[in-house]
Amino acid sequence: MQEYSIGVDMGGTNLRAAAIDGNGKILDKISADTRYTAGRDVVMKDIVAAIQAVRTRVGSGELIGVGIGIPGFIQIQTGVVAGMPNLPGFEGFPVRDEIQRQLGTTIVLENDANAAALGEKWMGAGRDVDELLLITLGTGIGGGIIIGGRVLHGFLGMAGELGHMTVVPEGTPWGCGNCGCLEKHASATAITAMAHMLQLGENLSAKDVYTLALAGNARARQCFTSMGVALGIALANLVNIFNFPLYLLSGGVLAAWDLFAPVMLDEVKKRSFTFSRTNARIEKGILGNEAGLYGAAYLPRQHSSTTVEAVAT
Amino acid sequence: MQEYSIGVDMGGTNLRAAAIDGNGKILDKISADTRYTAGRDVVMKDIVAAIQAVRTRVGSGELIGVGIGIPGFIQIQTGVVAGMPNLPGFEGFPVRDEIQRQLGTTIVLENDANAAALGEKWMGAGRDVDELLLITLGTGIGGGIIIGGRVLHGFLGMAGELGHMTVVPEGTPWGCGNCGCLEKHASATAITAMAHMLQLGENLSAKDVYTLALAGNARARQCFTSMGVALGIALANLVNIFNFPLYLLSGGVLAAWDLFAPVMLDEVKKRSFTFSRTNARIEKGILGNEAGLYGAAYLPRQHSSTTVEAVAT
Repeated sequence: MQEYSIGVDMGGTNLRAAAIDGNGKILDKISADTRYTAGRDVVMKDIVAAIQAVRTRVGSGELIGVGIGIPGFIQIQTGVVAGMPNLPGFEGFPVRDEIQRQLGTTIVLENDANAAALGEKWMGAGRDVDELLLITLGTGIGGGIIIGGRVLHGFLGMAGELGHMTVVPEGTPWGCGNCGCLEKHASATAITAMAHMLQLGENLSAKDVYTLALAGNARARQCFTSMGVALGIALANLVNIFNFPLYLLSGGVLAAWDLFAPVMLDEVKKRSFTFSRTNARIEKGILGNEAGLYGAAYLPRQHSSTTVEAVAT
Repeated sequence: MQEYSIGVDMGGTNLRAAAIDGNGKILDKISADTRYTAGRDVVMKDIVAAIQAVRTRVGSGELIGVGIGIPGFIQIQTGVVAGMPNLPGFEGFPVRDEIQRQLGTTIVLENDANAAALGEKWMGAGRDVDELLLITLGTGIGGGIIIGGRVLHGFLGMAGELGHMTVVPEGTPWGCGNCGCLEKHASATAITAMAHMLQLGENLSAKDVYTLALAGNARARQCFTSMGVALGIALANLVNIFNFPLYLLSGGVLAAWDLFAPVMLDEVKKRSFTFSRTNARIEKGILGNEAGLYGAAYLPRQHSSTTVEAVAT
């Protein structure tokens, strides 16, 4: 009988679920509009329904477990959501146990950026390494760190908050209370804010700024140069800290790679003591927005193994 | 028969070696002047002689191995020194195999700051945790990262280069080619340089600046305030990245704790998204300059175990 797991990704606009076998083959995949504004109970029902729908469609296979990538903080040991800024009502709620009770199968929760990093490790750009780091560039900036083939959680599941790294100490304040954090300088929101500051036009989206930059607008290009410098400072620090073989970027802003990446790589070379000596790779993730689905589906597979090879020898 | 290991610490001015049993009890310890300027062969002889001297003094016990903390980069897999800025002639030299051949016992090399972090984990301030990070504040700044009870090496043994983190992107250049790295703003050398810039006096040592600050000199105090801000920015980033329960500081500059730590902790609170939510501790190491000896002695104990508990569950 076919054996598979299900990965769920609670994205910003829709909820996706995929059944994936042990070789990384997607057996079935669905995407559903989610009524995120309708409150916790409705969202919980939608998650359970999506998992059940995929399970029904796959049919007779053996489901070994379900992993769920969540845009928030999770207390890993207890499966309780510690914080989910965009979905009120979940804080302190035992999401894992509640879904487990309803479905009768192993449920593993993970932060969405961590799940995406794990997906790239399992079936993406990081298949050949055991240590990598992923920065997701979207409306906000998230991060995931893989060490010894597993997600680094830290002691309360809050490791990898790379969007909050300080890159410009004297920068203007951000929602988190910090000044000059990476998210303020390299997210889609940051591009929009910079365009506004440079008086490029009214209500421009990051994509509009990108189009202007491609057409040769110097101020629009400046937004992406500034983004590249900020990312380069952050990446140089991460290279000095981790000495990993691979650093990945993903997310919607990746479309502007040609505009920000050369500046970013120059900055890393300039600032990282170890980059040039170690041939570390800084690349695009290859799974796109499916990385989170793969990573989520891989979670129950790791969950069942309780020991790993030594991280260091 | 008593079982023990030997830890060696190649410090800046002298070479120390200690025999330590499995409970962390120091059975014997020696400190020797080392002729670092006399070249590689002399230094190698001194290391071997120090180990043999301790072994002879301990007498009949069973030596399970020797760990050596080295102020440089080590290719962990091969035991070859990749770089040792202050001791020319070692680059590319197979230090591990050469000493192993002469002594006929297991030799494990480690970067000195990594060894100090491991020492604090084994017998120091980090005994009760499996994940911690140590920043050594001396003439330069080093770092060690412990995950799952073991040193994080990265793929070429160069992880933990925390002194090269950028804390002031527009700062003036440093020897490493970067601008505004932590080492330039928070080491003893940085204190001396700041004192010179502030025209505090001719040829002042960091200790002189400390004495002036204690006596109420405003410009001398400013040096330590500036150091606190730089350390706070770096620590806030590290807290956001790792979500560890414990961050330790050690080294000679720790004597000025009361002058820089309050500013440092304020900066961390302001800049770290996760610090206040996770009760992370930022503290002094408790083993002083013996941390490296303990860590080095612990290396052969870890070397013999090939699997570790899961880093993440």
